[in-house]
Amino acid sequence: MVTHAQRSRGTMTGTATGRRRSTTKAARARATLSDVAREAGVSLATASRALNGTSGRAVGDGLRERVQAAADRLDYSPDANAQAMARGRTASIGLVVHDIADPYFSSIAAGVTAAADAGGYAVTLANTQHDHVRELHFVQTLQSQRARAIILAGGRQDDDEANDRLRAALRGYREQGGTVAVIGQAILGVSTVRVDNVGGSAALATALHGLGYRRFGVMAGPQRHLTARERTTGFVDALARLGVDVPPAAVVHSEFTRTGGNTALAELLLRAPDVELVFAVNDVMAVGAMSAARDAGIVVPGGLAFAGFDDIATLHDVNPALTTVHLPLEEMGRLATPLALDAAAEPREVVVTGEVRLRDSTPARSA
Amino acid sequence: MVTHAQRSRGTMTGTATGRRRSTTKAARARATLSDVAREAGVSLATASRALNGTSGRAVGDGLRERVQAAADRLDYSPDANAQAMARGRTASIGLVVHDIADPYFSSIAAGVTAAADAGGYAVTLANTQHDHVRELHFVQTLQSQRARAIILAGGRQDDDEANDRLRAALRGYREQGGTVAVIGQAILGVSTVRVDNVGGSAALATALHGLGYRRFGVMAGPQRHLTARERTTGFVDALARLGVDVPPAAVVHSEFTRTGGNTALAELLLRAPDVELVFAVNDVMAVGAMSAARDAGIVVPGGLAFAGFDDIATLHDVNPALTTVHLPLEEMGRLATPLALDAAAEPREVVVTGEVRLRDSTPARSA
Repeated sequence: MVTHAQRSRGTMTGTATGRRRSTTKAARARATLSDVAREAGVSLATASRALNGTSGRAVGDGLRERVQAAADRLDYSPDANAQAMARGRTASIGLVVHDIADPYFSSIAAGVTAAADAGGYAVTLANTQHDHVRELHFVQTLQSQRARAIILAGGRQDDDEANDRLRAALRGYREQGGTVAVIGQAILGVSTVRVDNVGGSAALATALHGLGYRRFGVMAGPQRHLTARERTTGFVDALARLGVDVPPAAVVHSEFTRTGGNTALAELLLRAPDVELVFAVNDVMAVGAMSAARDAGIVVPGGLAFAGFDDIATLHDVNPALTTVHLPLEEMGRLATPLALDAAAEPREVVVTGEVRLRDSTPARSA
Repeated sequence: MVTHAQRSRGTMTGTATGRRRSTTKAARARATLSDVAREAGVSLATASRALNGTSGRAVGDGLRERVQAAADRLDYSPDANAQAMARGRTASIGLVVHDIADPYFSSIAAGVTAAADAGGYAVTLANTQHDHVRELHFVQTLQSQRARAIILAGGRQDDDEANDRLRAALRGYREQGGTVAVIGQAILGVSTVRVDNVGGSAALATALHGLGYRRFGVMAGPQRHLTARERTTGFVDALARLGVDVPPAAVVHSEFTRTGGNTALAELLLRAPDVELVFAVNDVMAVGAMSAARDAGIVVPGGLAFAGFDDIATLHDVNPALTTVHLPLEEMGRLATPLALDAAAEPREVVVTGEVRLRDSTPARSA
């Protein structure tokens, strides 16, 4: 059936572009596995086992060489789909991200593609656009494609129903031999690269307190986003331990984006006009808020200081340079790849701790 | 063979994580196409044609429904690899980019994933890290995976040998029924989304001349990079038509990155100390150069003005805001997708024209 389909396509293509190619070349169809078997004088099944590396049913070296020589003579290109069927798995890793245009995820993707490439795996990229129904759908699609492993990158939501559905989908995928890793919260019953958001924002709060800041506002991101919540809690609790209270009015919620930070600043300043420093739970919100402050005629950082979280490389040139918590995003993608490929009995957890980077957006305050 | 491999994997997984699952579930193996055929009382070939949509050999509606009902009863999940073999192509588009962590390419990737998803295609992501040998290798890998189409994103090099090898690889892929589109220069004999780099930088030069600038420096990027060369030529030639000469000493080459712009500024100012405005052939170089100027104590834009090319969204908050040529990057990814899937006889070309965006980094000069 493959041969038939390929032949008709080949002929169509040949006819259509015939003007720029010799007739011989255009009419040449791809050698099939049957052609190789005939050339080598072996059965189709033997040719398949020799070339497609079926597990558990090895053919002798001599036979393998004979089939390979026939394949070479016929310029036979092995079919990765046939190999995948023979092995039961394709050599591909599914990478599911919330938004590939967000530098947080594209940096993770760079790490995953580097590690996958080094291991001989292709990467299938799925972009959920922050929609958990699409995320679930992609897991099912990757299962039907028999992807070897899946990496889900991005913070989880506080949504029991959606998380349960995703757990069930991942369980089904794993029961069929797939393996999974998550970059985010360790709540899905699979191996996880977990960011210590609480520890990172606590360290940031402590450092900012050390610089003399006492009145803080928090741009806390979306209400049900667990990463946003952990960063907010870590920051506020650490300050409480230092005797500094962040009043609920000084904590505002918005989208996790530049626009979210940009539009929510006015609300924060209305509700808590005396804040000295705004902590946004990610860099893009911080930069959006800083821009809004400047547009409102506030001097940054003299009139209002700003800090973020993530240390996005493309934001390194904002002025003043942004104080933040550095995450090794590309490294997180690299770490997740062997974790996703590992069929270990018990889920493992790798914890990534961020590092505080104090920059010009939060100068030391004189007493 | 698939069944065999899957069964043993399934059992291993089940045993390993048995504590959290019922024995029944862990021991349950995936229903195979043979099981479905038996349940429906049809031959394996008929079941395959009914479920895998083999082209050209349709089964009747009644038979298809009977097989589908049997598949539903057995909770049979179709094997995308088997479907791919039956159709001769997987429903996947290979996207080959120079650097996925670069916002230029991640924005294009967002457009490709959106368009591919709408059309029911998966996207296989390959990251060349600016290495043309890896790019060639990825084309061959995508061919062996029988990817339905390939999109090559990113400017071409002035390197006849490398371009010839790539042309040959793409020709081989197309002869086997694959289809291709390029985002970049239309020099590979395939359909192309071509950026009008010459026109965009000419329009920018004209606008900056209109603001009163007369002494320009150019950070021209890598010597053999065609995108960098087109943008340099477009800019310099447009100024020549306006009677303004850019001396060769005021054109410096460097990497196409933030670091490239950052380190090359000193050389430019040494060779052409009287420049009023630096045009960098992409935004990240411009931002790197702006940072270097500030570090050297130069007032930006009063002492030195800067302009870039691309209008990268994550750079919108640099201060002063950067004058640039806006490219619709995500849209370019969207446009390339149907172009890549189209098996038209003759290569097509879609031209994308940038729009000049004058911002605070290039204030009008008083005469």
